[in-house]
Amino acid sequence: MTLPADHPLLDGRTTHSAVVRAFSADRPDTPPVWFMRQAGRSLPEYRAAREGVGMLESCLLPELASEITLQPVRRHRVDAGIFFSDIVVPLRLAGVDVDIAPGVGPVLGAPVRTAADVDRLAASGPLTAETLAPITRAVGLTVAQLGSTPLLGFAGAPFTLAAYLVEGRPSRDHLAARTLMHADPGAWRALTEWAADLTGSFLRAQVLAGASAVQLFDSWAGSLSRTDYVTHCAPSSARALSHVADLGVKVVHFGTGTEHLLTALRDVGADVVGVDYRTPLDEANRLLGGRTPLQGNIDPALLAAPWPVLEAHVRDVVRRGADAPGHVVNLGHGVPPTTDPDVLTRVVELVHTLGS
Amino acid sequence: MTLPADHPLLDGRTTHSAVVRAFSADRPDTPPVWFMRQAGRSLPEYRAAREGVGMLESCLLPELASEITLQPVRRHRVDAGIFFSDIVVPLRLAGVDVDIAPGVGPVLGAPVRTAADVDRLAASGPLTAETLAPITRAVGLTVAQLGSTPLLGFAGAPFTLAAYLVEGRPSRDHLAARTLMHADPGAWRALTEWAADLTGSFLRAQVLAGASAVQLFDSWAGSLSRTDYVTHCAPSSARALSHVADLGVKVVHFGTGTEHLLTALRDVGADVVGVDYRTPLDEANRLLGGRTPLQGNIDPALLAAPWPVLEAHVRDVVRRGADAPGHVVNLGHGVPPTTDPDVLTRVVELVHTLGS
Repeated sequence: MTLPADHPLLDGRTTHSAVVRAFSADRPDTPPVWFMRQAGRSLPEYRAAREGVGMLESCLLPELASEITLQPVRRHRVDAGIFFSDIVVPLRLAGVDVDIAPGVGPVLGAPVRTAADVDRLAASGPLTAETLAPITRAVGLTVAQLGSTPLLGFAGAPFTLAAYLVEGRPSRDHLAARTLMHADPGAWRALTEWAADLTGSFLRAQVLAGASAVQLFDSWAGSLSRTDYVTHCAPSSARALSHVADLGVKVVHFGTGTEHLLTALRDVGADVVGVDYRTPLDEANRLLGGRTPLQGNIDPALLAAPWPVLEAHVRDVVRRGADAPGHVVNLGHGVPPTTDPDVLTRVVELVHTLGS
Repeated sequence: MTLPADHPLLDGRTTHSAVVRAFSADRPDTPPVWFMRQAGRSLPEYRAAREGVGMLESCLLPELASEITLQPVRRHRVDAGIFFSDIVVPLRLAGVDVDIAPGVGPVLGAPVRTAADVDRLAASGPLTAETLAPITRAVGLTVAQLGSTPLLGFAGAPFTLAAYLVEGRPSRDHLAARTLMHADPGAWRALTEWAADLTGSFLRAQVLAGASAVQLFDSWAGSLSRTDYVTHCAPSSARALSHVADLGVKVVHFGTGTEHLLTALRDVGADVVGVDYRTPLDEANRLLGGRTPLQGNIDPALLAAPWPVLEAHVRDVVRRGADAPGHVVNLGHGVPPTTDPDVLTRVVELVHTLGS
C-alpha cells in the first residue's frame, strides 16, 4: 500500500468498520447500510445548504461539499459517507465546458462527435494536484469529522462519462455514443481511455486524501449488450480502476439494469458488485458464482409505501443477501428526491437490528 | 375464428404472407422484415403529412392515420405495416384528459395516484363502436390498400399505460407507479384491469377491421423485477390479450430491457416475443426454450454507422435468429427520428437477399 500513514485504513480508524469488513467478504454482526444519493435533495438541510449555489459549484467548494457529505451520516447514522460529487466534476476540473442544468442534468457546451472532437478534448491536460485541490481538501475535511465511519470515494465510469460527452446531455438510449463505438472504434477508444485516466485520477485523489473504499458508477451501462460492454467499455473501466489498484482499497461497481452484465462489472477489477432493485440478491449471488460481496438492493419505489410493506421488503433483501460472502445494504438505485428522510433513518435502525 | 369473411386472413390475402408465416413458427424463403416506429419522423413524407396536426389528432383522423401507416410500406417495401397510433390513444377515446406534448410525450391533465382517482377513471365507460369508429375506419382504409401485406395492430400493455396514468408524464423509473402497486395493490389491480379492457378492446377493433396480427408494447416493463412483473402486471396483460384470443391472430409482445422477463412476456398469451437489441437472438431463443418465434433485433444505434458495419450486424442478427422456430427481422427498439430513410430501405433489400 502506498497510502499515507495517517490514512483511516492505516491508522486503524476504519479498518474494522462494518462496511470495510463486508466489502472484504466478511460478515459483521449486523449488516452495514448506506444509501446511494443519501447526500442530496431528500434532506431539508441539503436544500438549505445548496440554496443559491449551482450543483457543480457546490461540488467544488470544499467546506460545502464536506458538509453535504456529512449531513446524512449525522442524521441517519448510516455506516458510510459517500463523497458528494457528480460524474462530470472531473470534466469541469479538466476545463471541459460542462454545467448541470437544473431539471435536465449535465449539458456540454459542445458535444464530442468525431475523432477531431476527441483529439481536441484529449488535449485537456491530466488532472494535477492543483486542479484536484478542492477535492483533496473536501475529502480531508470530511474524513477528519467521520472518525470510524468510512468515506467512500465516488466516480463515474468511462462509458457513462463518454455517453454524456457524445450526447451533449442526458439521453434515454445513448444512441450517439453507441453509434460512435461502432462507427469509429478508434475515436471511441481514445475518448474512453482519456475519460478513464480522468476519472481514475479523480478517484485516486479521493483515496489518497482519506477515502476508505470507492464506488465506480456506470449509470448507463445497462443500455449496452454484454458484447458491446465487454468489447467497447470494460477495457476503459479496468483502466480507470488501475489508477487505484496499488492503494489496496475495495472497489464497488454499480449500474442499473445490469443483470446481464454482473460478472462483467466485477471482472474489470471490482471487489464488490452493486445490484439494482430488479435482480434479487440471491439470484445475483448465483450469477456471480457465490464469491463476490454484494451491495444493494432495496427498491426505491418502496420508500414511499406504508411502513409494513417497506419493512417486509427490507427484511427480504437482507435475507436474500445472506448467502453472499459479504453484504452492504443499500438501495437498488439512488434516493428519490421526494423521499421522507425519516423513512431512511427508520430503515437504518431496522437493518441494525437484523443479523448479518 | 369470429373474423368477418372479408378479413385478409380469411379471404387469403395475408394468410400466407411471410410475416404471418414466421409468426406461426414457419420459415419463409427469406426472412420478413419491418421496423418498429417505421411510420414516423424519419420520413420526410411523414413530417409533411403531420405538419400543423397534433400527434393525437393525427391518430384520430382516419385518412391521415392510414396514409402515415402506408408510407413506410410503399417506400421501404417492408413486409408488414404497423397501425399508426400511440399507446395513449385509447385513453383519449375513453375521454381521459391526455395529450402528447411535443418533445415531452404523453401528459395527463390529472395524474392517477389514489384509489379514489382510480374509481373516477374507471367510470369512463368502455370503448364503443362509436368511439372506436376512427380506428376502425383507418384500419379499413389501410387494409384496402395493403393487399397481401399484413397490417399489424398496435396497443400498449396495461403496465405501461398505468405508468403514464400514475406518473402523469413520461418518467425514467416509473417510481410512482411502482410505489402504487405495492402501497395499494387493490387500487393497482383495479387500474390495470381497467387499462387491460381499454387496450384490449382497442386491439380487438383493429383486428376485426382487418389487422392480421397484433403487437402489444410494454415499453416500460423492463423497469420491473421479474417478481413484480409476474405478480402485478402479467395478469392484466393476459387480460388485455384475452380480448383478441378468440380471433386467432398471432400476438407479438415487446418491451425494452426485458431479458429477465422474456418467458414471462410470452406466458401472458403471446405467440412471438420481440427482443430488444441488448440480447442476441440465439441467447433469447435459448432463454425461451427454442419454441417461440422471435422478432428483432437490429441495434438502432448501428443505423447511423457506416454501411459495412451495419451490413455485418444485420447478417449477424439473421444468423443468430436462424435457430428460432420463426424470425421476423426488426429493430431492437424504434427507428430513431434522425435515421436516414435510405438506410432502412437498404436494410430491407439486404434482408430479402438472405436465406431464412
